[in-house]
Amino acid sequence: MTEISLSQYSFVYNALSFGIAAMGAATVFFFLGRSQVSKDYRLAVTVTGLVTLIATYHYFRIFQSWEAAYSIMGSKVTPTGQPFNDAYRYVDWLLTVPLLLVELILVMKLPPKETYTKSVRLGLLAAVMVALGYPGEVAGSLGARWIWWVLAMIPFVLIVYELFFGLRDSIQSQPQAARGMVSAARWITVLSWCFYPLVYLFPMVGLSGGAALTGVQVGYTLADLIAKAAFGVFIYFIALRKSEVELSANRMVDKEFVAAE
Amino acid sequence: MTEISLSQYSFVYNALSFGIAAMGAATVFFFLGRSQVSKDYRLAVTVTGLVTLIATYHYFRIFQSWEAAYSIMGSKVTPTGQPFNDAYRYVDWLLTVPLLLVELILVMKLPPKETYTKSVRLGLLAAVMVALGYPGEVAGSLGARWIWWVLAMIPFVLIVYELFFGLRDSIQSQPQAARGMVSAARWITVLSWCFYPLVYLFPMVGLSGGAALTGVQVGYTLADLIAKAAFGVFIYFIALRKSEVELSANRMVDKEFVAAE
Repeated sequence: MTEISLSQYSFVYNALSFGIAAMGAATVFFFLGRSQVSKDYRLAVTVTGLVTLIATYHYFRIFQSWEAAYSIMGSKVTPTGQPFNDAYRYVDWLLTVPLLLVELILVMKLPPKETYTKSVRLGLLAAVMVALGYPGEVAGSLGARWIWWVLAMIPFVLIVYELFFGLRDSIQSQPQAARGMVSAARWITVLSWCFYPLVYLFPMVGLSGGAALTGVQVGYTLADLIAKAAFGVFIYFIALRKSEVELSANRMVDKEFVAAE
Repeated sequence: MTEISLSQYSFVYNALSFGIAAMGAATVFFFLGRSQVSKDYRLAVTVTGLVTLIATYHYFRIFQSWEAAYSIMGSKVTPTGQPFNDAYRYVDWLLTVPLLLVELILVMKLPPKETYTKSVRLGLLAAVMVALGYPGEVAGSLGARWIWWVLAMIPFVLIVYELFFGLRDSIQSQPQAARGMVSAARWITVLSWCFYPLVYLFPMVGLSGGAALTGVQVGYTLADLIAKAAFGVFIYFIALRKSEVELSANRMVDKEFVAAE
């Protein structure tokens, strides 16, 4: 296990604990908020809460694994010989990254068939992307890390293409009050996801030892918080706004109906 | 780790346990009380409960870290060599302090745009304030502690200014039955928050060793209980009062409508 300083150890330790607290609080927020949106959007908000729930579990595991990998005495940090299990992140992403794309599609309320085909296509691409990233993360050589990085970038680029061009018409069909927010949610996805391949590059651009390990762990945590919790809050408010707009539109129709009678 | 007496150790230990119990109970109170307020105020009460939920988690972590930092044999307290992780408090504040200001804004039910801009402005100022406090808390020298204290006071003063002058018109627009309570909530925020920079000063005004450590830990715990749990109870009763006032106002309108027909 890599040698690190006490301040590096503590930075990762506190970032991971922050991850548990923020993902856990976000989960409670989504599950409580579920009843505030109309039935059409409950599935989107449920999936949003599942993503942060899965992340809470994994951050708890990563935290425990980090704690077990080092022993602290005063200001001295010694590797215990227990491995730090990096695979938790990939297991998490394999579940949550496809679900994040499903959230975005569900909150758009497209026709059922389109919802299904787009969810399957984007979900599969996301799973392939995560699966291709892992061998590089555990590879011993930088050469192998580069190869897997390039391979994982192929589905990544396809997802970005699909979000911008495949969903363009669907976004135009959103009610005016929510169109800007849906478009922004798409941007948050693309921008926050760009963090991951960048963090992945840290060891390849000269960062090594404790600094690389700290940068990768804190970087992934920050990216996860934006891509899952902050993005989820956005999805929630889109669902809430669309529920309100549709509810008041229905009321107008009801009133006109009564007046016409 | 600082040498402390058994009574100092126990005082902090019991204060932290009190923190877990009080924050946990407050969380249950807010989540159960959520259904008693009208839809417009549920988000405010939800955020109130999230703040104490996040604090419960952190008090549990701080308690565990305190327990691990010392070993007790009879009346002798010996540092174990495990560091006491003070950063938990800052990680907590980074999440909860912006949310506390959001609670206050949400319960005022301002127009959506104003709610958004005020939440973002106050939330960001609060996060900057907490982030500027941390380097001083872990600094070795009193000089550095003073510098970060002064820097963190800048956003603090801006928040107080915003609460008193920026929100003045908004408070005047509150229904008469709740105006006094909203104004009081603002006062609780300002007064309870003044505790923090004062506690921060303890080591700088001659308190040192076990007395300073005990004062800082018990002081922060007390300040947290007032700023989060007691303040939250206030927010809850404002939400309840406003729900009742608005409900009876709506009933009056309905009756007049029926009478006019």
